Amino acid sequence: MRYTLSALAEQTGAGLSGSGDVIVEKVADITSGEEGSIVFVSNAKYTKHLKTTDASAVIITDKMLQSCDKPALVTENPRVVFSKVALLLNPLPKVEPWISPHAVIAEDADVDPSARIEACVVIQSGVSIGPGTWLSPGCVLEKNVRIGANTRLFANVTIGEGCTVGDNTILHSGAVVGADGFGFVWDQDAYMKVPQLGSVNIGNSVEIGANTTIDRGAIGDTIVEDGVKIDNLVQLGHNDHVGEHTTMSGQSGISGSVKIGRKCVIGGGVGIGDNLEITDNVILAGRSNVANSIKEPGMYAAVIPVVEARKWRRILARIKQLDELAKRIKALESKNK
Amino acid sequence: MRYTLSALAEQTGAGLSGSGDVIVEKVADITSGEEGSIVFVSNAKYTKHLKTTDASAVIITDKMLQSCDKPALVTENPRVVFSKVALLLNPLPKVEPWISPHAVIAEDADVDPSARIEACVVIQSGVSIGPGTWLSPGCVLEKNVRIGANTRLFANVTIGEGCTVGDNTILHSGAVVGADGFGFVWDQDAYMKVPQLGSVNIGNSVEIGANTTIDRGAIGDTIVEDGVKIDNLVQLGHNDHVGEHTTMSGQSGISGSVKIGRKCVIGGGVGIGDNLEITDNVILAGRSNVANSIKEPGMYAAVIPVVEARKWRRILARIKQLDELAKRIKALESKNK
Amino acid sequence: MRYTLSALAEQTGAGLSGSGDVIVEKVADITSGEEGSIVFVSNAKYTKHLKTTDASAVIITDKMLQSCDKPALVTENPRVVFSKVALLLNPLPKVEPWISPHAVIAEDADVDPSARIEACVVIQSGVSIGPGTWLSPGCVLEKNVRIGANTRLFANVTIGEGCTVGDNTILHSGAVVGADGFGFVWDQDAYMKVPQLGSVNIGNSVEIGANTTIDRGAIGDTIVEDGVKIDNLVQLGHNDHVGEHTTMSGQSGISGSVKIGRKCVIGGGVGIGDNLEITDNVILAGRSNVANSIKEPGMYAAVIPVVEARKWRRILARIKQLDELAKRIKALESKNK
Repeated sequence: MRYTLSALAEQTGAGLSGSGDVIVEKVADITSGEEGSIVFVSNAKYTKHLKTTDASAVIITDKMLQSCDKPALVTENPRVVFSKVALLLNPLPKVEPWISPHAVIAEDADVDPSARIEACVVIQSGVSIGPGTWLSPGCVLEKNVRIGANTRLFANVTIGEGCTVGDNTILHSGAVVGADGFGFVWDQDAYMKVPQLGSVNIGNSVEIGANTTIDRGAIGDTIVEDGVKIDNLVQLGHNDHVGEHTTMSGQSGISGSVKIGRKCVIGGGVGIGDNLEITDNVILAGRSNVANSIKEPGMYAAVIPVVEARKWRRILARIKQLDELAKRIKALESKNK
Repeated sequence: MRYTLSALAEQTGAGLSGSGDVIVEKVADITSGEEGSIVFVSNAKYTKHLKTTDASAVIITDKMLQSCDKPALVTENPRVVFSKVALLLNPLPKVEPWISPHAVIAEDADVDPSARIEACVVIQSGVSIGPGTWLSPGCVLEKNVRIGANTRLFANVTIGEGCTVGDNTILHSGAVVGADGFGFVWDQDAYMKVPQLGSVNIGNSVEIGANTTIDRGAIGDTIVEDGVKIDNLVQLGHNDHVGEHTTMSGQSGISGSVKIGRKCVIGGGVGIGDNLEITDNVILAGRSNVANSIKEPGMYAAVIPVVEARKWRRILARIKQLDELAKRIKALESKNK
Repeated sequence: MRYTLSALAEQTGAGLSGSGDVIVEKVADITSGEEGSIVFVSNAKYTKHLKTTDASAVIITDKMLQSCDKPALVTENPRVVFSKVALLLNPLPKVEPWISPHAVIAEDADVDPSARIEACVVIQSGVSIGPGTWLSPGCVLEKNVRIGANTRLFANVTIGEGCTVGDNTILHSGAVVGADGFGFVWDQDAYMKVPQLGSVNIGNSVEIGANTTIDRGAIGDTIVEDGVKIDNLVQLGHNDHVGEHTTMSGQSGISGSVKIGRKCVIGGGVGIGDNLEITDNVILAGRSNVANSIKEPGMYAAVIPVVEARKWRRILARIKQLDELAKRIKALESKNK
């Protein structure tokens, strides 16, 4: 797609500085922009590139205008305008309704005629699929799954029996929704499986990453509210409840029966223990671990970043002596009273 | 299904207190029980709910009887009885023998007539599948795989060439058994792949979580003994050996040639280094890391849970100074002799 | 396959000690060798087994010859020679060209006649597949994917639109290449998805583990250079760039826009934060976390291995007091000036 800069200003609501007639046909990175491209700067440390980029137009804040003589879209939030421009220049493919002859669909499934079902998709009895929803090859929808409108399942996604997915939601390849939760009780001489009787309810405008797993509830359901964004290889345990607009980065892992509030930001690789409650607006630094409920919004952390291995060996030896070191300080204090 | 409470007492071996004629038709959580449901309490902090639940019956210990005037199943282990009741009320679906016309099965594969093979399952040459075993859509069984009786593979599971799975075992969706172990040797100017010649042997009554990966052995096999329960997104490396009735929670990761004993409890996200040996009955706290063999049963840990990020920055600065701080303590001690 | 020891010496370039007529037909572990097998020792602590093994031949260094009276291949690098021998004795299966009637291939896809395409593989429009390449069942190749020669995709691998894979590369089951990167911007009252417009370029002689996920770039591509070896359940974020011959062990996770140099060794479960740069020849200890760019080659670490839980509780309490302890040391020093 090609747009004039003035058309982009109009469609994104950004201000216009300089010629609106410039033709823009692709987005680029500020360090690599070429003719016909548009770039953005939101971080002051990149403003220096505004002088050297070959991009035809830029997206910047009002403040940066003085460092720039290019045609510009002016906005308080360059990243948002850039995303809108990128989407205008690269519109999502229209969903062409189709049912592959190589899909396997139960007779009583209710597939909207505007949906697209690709090869080797298996849809079991009682499933319903809303308008404009698109299933890539290899997806498996077990009995009584319900999927809303304009939702996209990429290849090889599995949705377990009775689980529901809302509208405008995206599940990336290999995601597994509705496997059994991990529940066992020791009974005399072996573990007995605790029946996992709940399901998973995923809201609208959710995104779920590749190979992420979301377990069904034991009693009652696992719930992912509207607008939640989950990255790849994340684990959500049984009966977890994730509040609206919370984001969870790659490889984070949430044990069972955890309640996470709204607008939280869970960093990559974060671990949260069983039965905890995290209030709204909590930020957890990547790779940190949560062992107690968090009742106050704010940022939390406890990760030790790497140092040279030789140096770490000395620190580690001291960590193991910490209790003794503290006692030696106390002894010194007694002597120095 | 519906049962009288006395029938449930009889079938589970629990004692009966109050009317045995009460009809029970579903399980519920102690905080949400309604008429017709049965709930359990095993933790004293929930006994207060016994007075307010609308459930028709409860599962409790002898001690709790005094706080409760509901019809009750009485047992020393309410969680076990609850699981048995849940299974009676929600029996597993009977496996209806069937071979989907959309399954692709090698001519020389040996599939028991009582097995169920769904659409888009691919079964290669030399595979054998026991009675009552059920393969969901999209599973791939490479050459010479052997699967026992009454085992369940959910959708899109892959079992690599020559691997074996026992009876009454469950593999959840997306699990990969028998990919090559991670073995390379540097040869002059590039890594050479070390052939991974072993396979994977999975025992009886094992459960393996969604998207979990279990690599084949390099020489000799990777072994998962009877009764082992493995959660989602777990990694087992080549030639690992996991002893009977050990549990491994989500995202735990075991390097190669690790021997884990019987009845261990491996927390979520735990890491265990190469070539280590963990004895029986070891409990590893979630997200902890093991760098040396563990020879004594017991609980082990080393994770720092999150604190406010501002506080953590100060602590972290001190951790980096630890060696110096220890030396300063020593200097003070010299002065104070 | 069977070889005489002298044939193996010739083919691997190793020296020969003792009878070259010994017949070798399989590899074994030094602790379990039997007649007809060949074993290797590269670590001095296993040389004692040289006296007791029933193996017919051994692979050892010059130095170990004195501890051993068996026929031997002699080399400075027993592990490399062993791998070569293992491959000679267990040659890779020849790829037999075939297109399963149960594969679903777009009319305009360009599949080399010497490729092998198994059942339930789905190949979309514009895809090209080179000679000798072998796709196991259930793989999905979206539009315009290009795969080189002699590459192997195991079962249920997904390659997203427009991504490329080189020659002699292996992708293990369930790997997902080219899912969207994790990019969102907050726009008034919800997150907006940042279009992920790049793709993924995977080089030659790369290996990618089971259920590993490699996201496409946002602008520009995610790049995995030649000879990179990636284990299972690894996450590579959008626009990451991994240099030649770097290895990444299981469950390591790399955020977005990270540049990793050549010949790095990334341990299992390692985490690397956004936008960092890791120079060549960096070794990161398993489960460690990187929060800043690393400019000097060498080994880095910062993991606390488990201790008895009781002991850890005391240490942890002291860690939380560290800032206060440091101040108390300072106060003591003032008194002792």
